[in-house]
Amino acid sequence: MPMPTEVHYHDYLQLDKILNAQSLESEKHNLVAHDEMLFIVIHQAYELWFKQLHHEADSVVAIMSKPALNDNSPELQTVVHRLSRCVTILRVLVHQIDIMETMTPMDFLDFRDMLRPASGFQSWQFKELEAKLGLKFEHRHGKEYYTAQLRPEQVEIIKKAEGSQSLLQLLNSWLERMPFLKEGADNSFWDNYKKIYGGSLADAEKNNQSAFEEIFSDGGDTVLNRDTTITRSLSPAACRAALFIMLYRGYPLLQLPFQLLNCLLEIDEQLSSWRYRHMNMVHRMIGTRIGTGGSTGKDYLKAAAEKHYIFREIAQLNSFLIERRKLPALPAEIEKHLGFGLL
Amino acid sequence: MPMPTEVHYHDYLQLDKILNAQSLESEKHNLVAHDEMLFIVIHQAYELWFKQLHHEADSVVAIMSKPALNDNSPELQTVVHRLSRCVTILRVLVHQIDIMETMTPMDFLDFRDMLRPASGFQSWQFKELEAKLGLKFEHRHGKEYYTAQLRPEQVEIIKKAEGSQSLLQLLNSWLERMPFLKEGADNSFWDNYKKIYGGSLADAEKNNQSAFEEIFSDGGDTVLNRDTTITRSLSPAACRAALFIMLYRGYPLLQLPFQLLNCLLEIDEQLSSWRYRHMNMVHRMIGTRIGTGGSTGKDYLKAAAEKHYIFREIAQLNSFLIERRKLPALPAEIEKHLGFGLL
Amino acid sequence: MPMPTEVHYHDYLQLDKILNAQSLESEKHNLVAHDEMLFIVIHQAYELWFKQLHHEADSVVAIMSKPALNDNSPELQTVVHRLSRCVTILRVLVHQIDIMETMTPMDFLDFRDMLRPASGFQSWQFKELEAKLGLKFEHRHGKEYYTAQLRPEQVEIIKKAEGSQSLLQLLNSWLERMPFLKEGADNSFWDNYKKIYGGSLADAEKNNQSAFEEIFSDGGDTVLNRDTTITRSLSPAACRAALFIMLYRGYPLLQLPFQLLNCLLEIDEQLSSWRYRHMNMVHRMIGTRIGTGGSTGKDYLKAAAEKHYIFREIAQLNSFLIERRKLPALPAEIEKHLGFGLL
Amino acid sequence: MPMPTEVHYHDYLQLDKILNAQSLESEKHNLVAHDEMLFIVIHQAYELWFKQLHHEADSVVAIMSKPALNDNSPELQTVVHRLSRCVTILRVLVHQIDIMETMTPMDFLDFRDMLRPASGFQSWQFKELEAKLGLKFEHRHGKEYYTAQLRPEQVEIIKKAEGSQSLLQLLNSWLERMPFLKEGADNSFWDNYKKIYGGSLADAEKNNQSAFEEIFSDGGDTVLNRDTTITRSLSPAACRAALFIMLYRGYPLLQLPFQLLNCLLEIDEQLSSWRYRHMNMVHRMIGTRIGTGGSTGKDYLKAAAEKHYIFREIAQLNSFLIERRKLPALPAEIEKHLGFGLL
Repeated sequence: MPMPTEVHYHDYLQLDKILNAQSLESEKHNLVAHDEMLFIVIHQAYELWFKQLHHEADSVVAIMSKPALNDNSPELQTVVHRLSRCVTILRVLVHQIDIMETMTPMDFLDFRDMLRPASGFQSWQFKELEAKLGLKFEHRHGKEYYTAQLRPEQVEIIKKAEGSQSLLQLLNSWLERMPFLKEGADNSFWDNYKKIYGGSLADAEKNNQSAFEEIFSDGGDTVLNRDTTITRSLSPAACRAALFIMLYRGYPLLQLPFQLLNCLLEIDEQLSSWRYRHMNMVHRMIGTRIGTGGSTGKDYLKAAAEKHYIFREIAQLNSFLIERRKLPALPAEIEKHLGFGLL
Repeated sequence: MPMPTEVHYHDYLQLDKILNAQSLESEKHNLVAHDEMLFIVIHQAYELWFKQLHHEADSVVAIMSKPALNDNSPELQTVVHRLSRCVTILRVLVHQIDIMETMTPMDFLDFRDMLRPASGFQSWQFKELEAKLGLKFEHRHGKEYYTAQLRPEQVEIIKKAEGSQSLLQLLNSWLERMPFLKEGADNSFWDNYKKIYGGSLADAEKNNQSAFEEIFSDGGDTVLNRDTTITRSLSPAACRAALFIMLYRGYPLLQLPFQLLNCLLEIDEQLSSWRYRHMNMVHRMIGTRIGTGGSTGKDYLKAAAEKHYIFREIAQLNSFLIERRKLPALPAEIEKHLGFGLL
Repeated sequence: MPMPTEVHYHDYLQLDKILNAQSLESEKHNLVAHDEMLFIVIHQAYELWFKQLHHEADSVVAIMSKPALNDNSPELQTVVHRLSRCVTILRVLVHQIDIMETMTPMDFLDFRDMLRPASGFQSWQFKELEAKLGLKFEHRHGKEYYTAQLRPEQVEIIKKAEGSQSLLQLLNSWLERMPFLKEGADNSFWDNYKKIYGGSLADAEKNNQSAFEEIFSDGGDTVLNRDTTITRSLSPAACRAALFIMLYRGYPLLQLPFQLLNCLLEIDEQLSSWRYRHMNMVHRMIGTRIGTGGSTGKDYLKAAAEKHYIFREIAQLNSFLIERRKLPALPAEIEKHLGFGLL
Repeated sequence: MPMPTEVHYHDYLQLDKILNAQSLESEKHNLVAHDEMLFIVIHQAYELWFKQLHHEADSVVAIMSKPALNDNSPELQTVVHRLSRCVTILRVLVHQIDIMETMTPMDFLDFRDMLRPASGFQSWQFKELEAKLGLKFEHRHGKEYYTAQLRPEQVEIIKKAEGSQSLLQLLNSWLERMPFLKEGADNSFWDNYKKIYGGSLADAEKNNQSAFEEIFSDGGDTVLNRDTTITRSLSPAACRAALFIMLYRGYPLLQLPFQLLNCLLEIDEQLSSWRYRHMNMVHRMIGTRIGTGGSTGKDYLKAAAEKHYIFREIAQLNSFLIERRKLPALPAEIEKHLGFGLL
C-alpha cells in the first residue's frame, strides 16, 4: 500500500468537473431561461445513476458468466445484493420525475427550441443498459428510429452490448444448469405437475394447458417458435427450473435463486414505472407537439413501456403455479440436496 | 356547547369496529392462510382513504356549485388546498402497492379461490369517485361488465353520481364565468394569438392549427362534435379561459386558478399511476389467469389506465401554448383587473 | 371444504363497519370542522396497519419460539420475509405523515379542544408492538406517564406483552444456539479476532477495545451490568454469533441470518423516522402548546425517538467489524458446515 | 439570435466530464472495492443537486432583495414556486439515502481508510446553502471544527454567504414592509388579540403569555435579547405580520405569503429529515468508530439536526394562534386592501 496521501472531498469527487459542466444554451442566446439549469442538472443526475447501474450490471454479468457459479460461494448473494441495489436506485429515479414536474410547460417553452435536435432518446447509456439486461434489437419499438438519433460510436456501443451475452441469456444458462430433478425424475415430476395444474384451471382458462406444453415441454419450444414471430429467450429446461424455484422456494438452496428472480421482475417493474411516468410527464409538457428530438415523444414512450419488458418470460411463469397444499412432495434425496450440509 | 365529556382515543376512533372487521375466509375453511389478513387490511385501508377522498371531493363540488364563486373569499383557496390534499393521499395510495407486492403469487394462491367472485372491481367507492370527478359512463371501459359486478344499490350510487354535476362540469361553468377578455376584446385577442401560435408550429405539426380552431372557436365545438363520437366536456369558451390562465398565470388573480388546473392534472396522473402499478401487480400475481372477479384483470386495468383520464381536455391545452416572450401584452385595464386592490 | 358460498367484496371487507366508524366530535358540538374527518381516518388507517404489524410480529415470535428453529425448513425464510414486510409497511406509515401535514395548525385548532383528553399516546396497539419487539418498561421514556393515559385493560395488554418473550429475547436465544465455533475453537478464534480489531483502531478509538471485552467476553457481561444501570438484552455468546454472521455473511448458511439482523435494524430505523417526523409534525402543529393528551407532545416524542431504539445492541456491533481482507480464514470443517449439502 | 447549430444530448450535458469524473482510490491501491463507485456517484449526485438548490436560492434572494417586491407582479409567485421546487428536490435527497443504505458496513470498510481525511463535512456547497438560507455562524454546532475541515477558499465562500443578506433576513424586511394594520390600528388589534389568546391558554401554558409579549411587542424584542444569548432574526413587527398572514390566510392577498411561510417550514423539515436519516445511516455504518473526517460523525449530525433549524422562529409562531371562530373581524377598509381590484 502506497504512502497514504491526504484525500480531500472536493478533489476526490472531482467537483471541479461536476460543478462546471452546466452551460445554458439560453444564455448563449442571451435569453436566459432560469429553468434550463434544472433541465441540465436532472439529466446529468440521471446519467450519473445510469453509470452506476452499468457498474452493478457489469459486475453481475461477470459473475453469471463464470462457467459454474458455485452455490457455496458468496457470489450468488452478491448478485442478488447488487440487483436489489439496482431496484433501489430505480425507485429513486422514478421519484426524481417529481422534480422535473416542477417545471411547467411555459417554463420549458422558454428554451425548448434552442435544444433541437438534442433529446432524451440520445441517452445511449440507457439503451446500452436495456441491451445489457436482455432487450433484443428486434423487440425494440422504432428500431431504425432510435439508431438514427445516435452517433456512430454510440450505436457501436449498443450493438456491442446487443452482441454480448445479456443478463437474460446468462440467466437462461444458469437455470439450465440447476441441478435438481435431472433426467428421468424430471419427466415424471412434470407430468404429474401438469395434471394437477390442468385440474386447477377454470373453464375459461383451458387454453393455459397448451401454453403450459409450449413453454415447459422440450418439444414445445419448437412449436412455439414456429408459431410466433417472437423468439423466446428462456428454454423449456430453464423455465422448468425457474418454476421449480418459485414453487419450492422454502428450501434453503432455493432462497437466493428465488430472490434473484424476484429482483429481475422488480427491475422490469421499476423500468416500466419510469417509462410510464416519463410518458405522462412528456405528455403534460408538450402535449401533442413534437419533441426536441423530432418524435411524438409520448407515443414512443408508450410503445416502449408496453414492449420493453425484458423479463416478461419470467413474469409469465406466475400463470403456471398451483396451490402450495397441492404441491407434490419431493423425494427425500432431492430434499437433502436442497438443504444445508450440517443435517 | 355541551358539557365536555372526556373523549378517549379508543372510543373516538371506534377501534372496536375497526379492529374487529377482519374475518378470514381461509379460517372458515380451516385452511388458514397467513397473508389473507394483509389482503383484507390493505383493502380496508384503501377504502378508508377512498372515503376521505369523497369527503374532500364533496366539499369541493359543494363550493364549486355556488352560483358565483367569489374570488375575494377564501373559497377558491380552500378548493385548491383540498384537491392538493387529494394528490397527497393518492401518492400514498400508489406507494401502498409496495405492501401488496410483498405477497408472493404462491401466498396469494393459498386463499385466492376462496374469495370468488369478490374482486376489487366491486369497489363502488372508487367508481363513484371517478364519476364524481367527471368520468362519464360512455367513456368507461367495459361498461356493462362493471355494472354486472355490483349490487343494485351500489349501481344506484354510481348512477346518481354520474347524473349529478361532476367536478369537470362545474369546472367548465366556472371557467366560462371567468371575467377576462369579454366580448369584442376576446375575439381580437384570440385571432392574434392564433396567428402567433400558427407561426410557432413545425411543419409536421401543422394539423395542430385546425385542432386549435376546433377546440377554441365557438363554432369549432360543433364541428368537433360532429366529427367524433366523443362528446367534449369543456366548451370553447372554457378552453379559452383555461389557456388564458396557463399563459398569464403570473398575475395575482390567476395564481389560484392555475394551481387548481394543475391539481386536477396531478390527480389524473396519480390515478393513472395507481392503475398502472396496480395492473403490473395483478399481472405479476396472477399472470394470464383469471381474476377472482372473473375478468382478465390485467387487460381491464390496462384499458382503464388508458381511457380513464378524466381531465385529459385540460392536459391537451398544453399543446397550444406559445413562448412567454411572444405573448401579447394585455391592455392596461385588463391588467388592473388581474391585480390587487391596493394598487 | 364446505360448499363455496359467493363472497362479495363489500361484505368480505366488512365495509359497513369500516365506513361507518367516523363520528365527528365537532359535529356533535354543531361546529363542524371539515378536517376532523381526516384526523379520524388517518388514525384509523394507522391502527389498521398496527393490527397488521401485530399479525406479522406474532407469527414471527411463534416461529422463533420453537425449541429448535430448523435451518433446513422454510421457517427462517418466512421470518425474514415477514419482518421485511413490516419494514415496507413502516415506510408507508412514515410517508403517510405527508397527509397529516396537509392539515394546517389553524385547521386543527377548529376541533382540537373538543378531543381532550384523547391523544395519540393512547394507542395501546403501538405500545404493545414496541413491547412485543423488545422495548422494556424500564427503557421507556415517561414510564408512569404513559400508563396513566391508558385504561386498565389496555395497560394489562401491554404488561402482558412486556412479560412474554419478546422478539429481542428470542433473537438472543436463537443466536446463542447458532452452531458455529463451538467450545475451544470459539476462544482461539475470538482471541485472534480481538487482536486484529485492536490493531485497526485509531488512537482516539482505543476505548473501543475495552468495550469489545465487555460486550463479547463471557465475563464482560457481568462487568458491564455492574457498571451501568441498563441491563443488556444480548449475551456475549449471542453477540459473538451476531458478529460472526455479519463478518461471514457470504456463506450460504449465514445469508438469511444476516438478512434477519438487517431487517431488525431497518425496523428500528423506520420506527425512529416515524417518531422523528411525527415529532416535527406535532411541533409544527401545536408549537409549545400542550397536546390534547396533556403532554408537551414534542418533548415526549423527541425523548422516545432517542431512547426507544429496540435493537440498538445489534446496531452497536457494527463498531467491531474489521476489513474483509483481514478476516481470519475459517477452518475447512466449519466452512463445510456453512455450505450446502450437495458439495 | 445566432444561427442555430445542432445540439447533441451528449455534448449538451457535457457527459464526457460527468461520466469521467469517477476515480477510485481503492483502484490506485490495487485493492478495488466495488462499492466505492457507489460512494462517489451518490456524493456527486448530491453535489449536483446542491448546485441546483443554490441556483434556486440565489434567484429567490435576488427577487426578495428588490427594494419593493411588487405584490401585483409575478415575482412572489416565482419565489414560492422555486422554494417549493427546493422542497421537492430535498424530498428526493432524503429518499436517496435509501441507496446509500444498500452499502453494508463491511463493504464500506473495504475502502474507508483510503479516504481519510476526506469527509462529507467538507461539502462547502451544503454549508454555503445553510448560510444563504439564514443559518448564522454563532448558531452552528462545532464552529471551529467545521472551518478547520475546509480549505481557505471554501471558508471564504461560506463567510461571504454569512456576510450577505440571508433569505431569513430578507424575509424579515419583507414582513416588516407588509402594508396591513399600520400605526394605531395595529396596536388596538394586537391588544385585543393578546387578550383572546390569553383566554385560550390552559393553566399549564400560562407562561406562553409572557412569551407572546417578548415576541410580538416592540419593547419585547429588547427584553428577549437581554435575557438570552441568542439573537433573534425576526423583529416583533415581522412576527406580527407573519402571524397575521397565518391567521387571515383566506384573503387573496395573503395566499401567496402563507404559501411562502409554509415552504420555508417544509425546507427546514426536509433538511432536518435529511440530517436525521443521515445520522442514522452513519451510525449504522460506523457505529462508535470515528468518521473519515476525524469526527464522531453521529454526534455532530445529531447536534446539527437539533440546532440547525433555520426558520424556527416562524415555526414558533404556531404556538400563538387562536381558533378561527374567535378571530377578530377585520375593518372593511383593510378587507378591501386584501382583495382583488375587480370588486
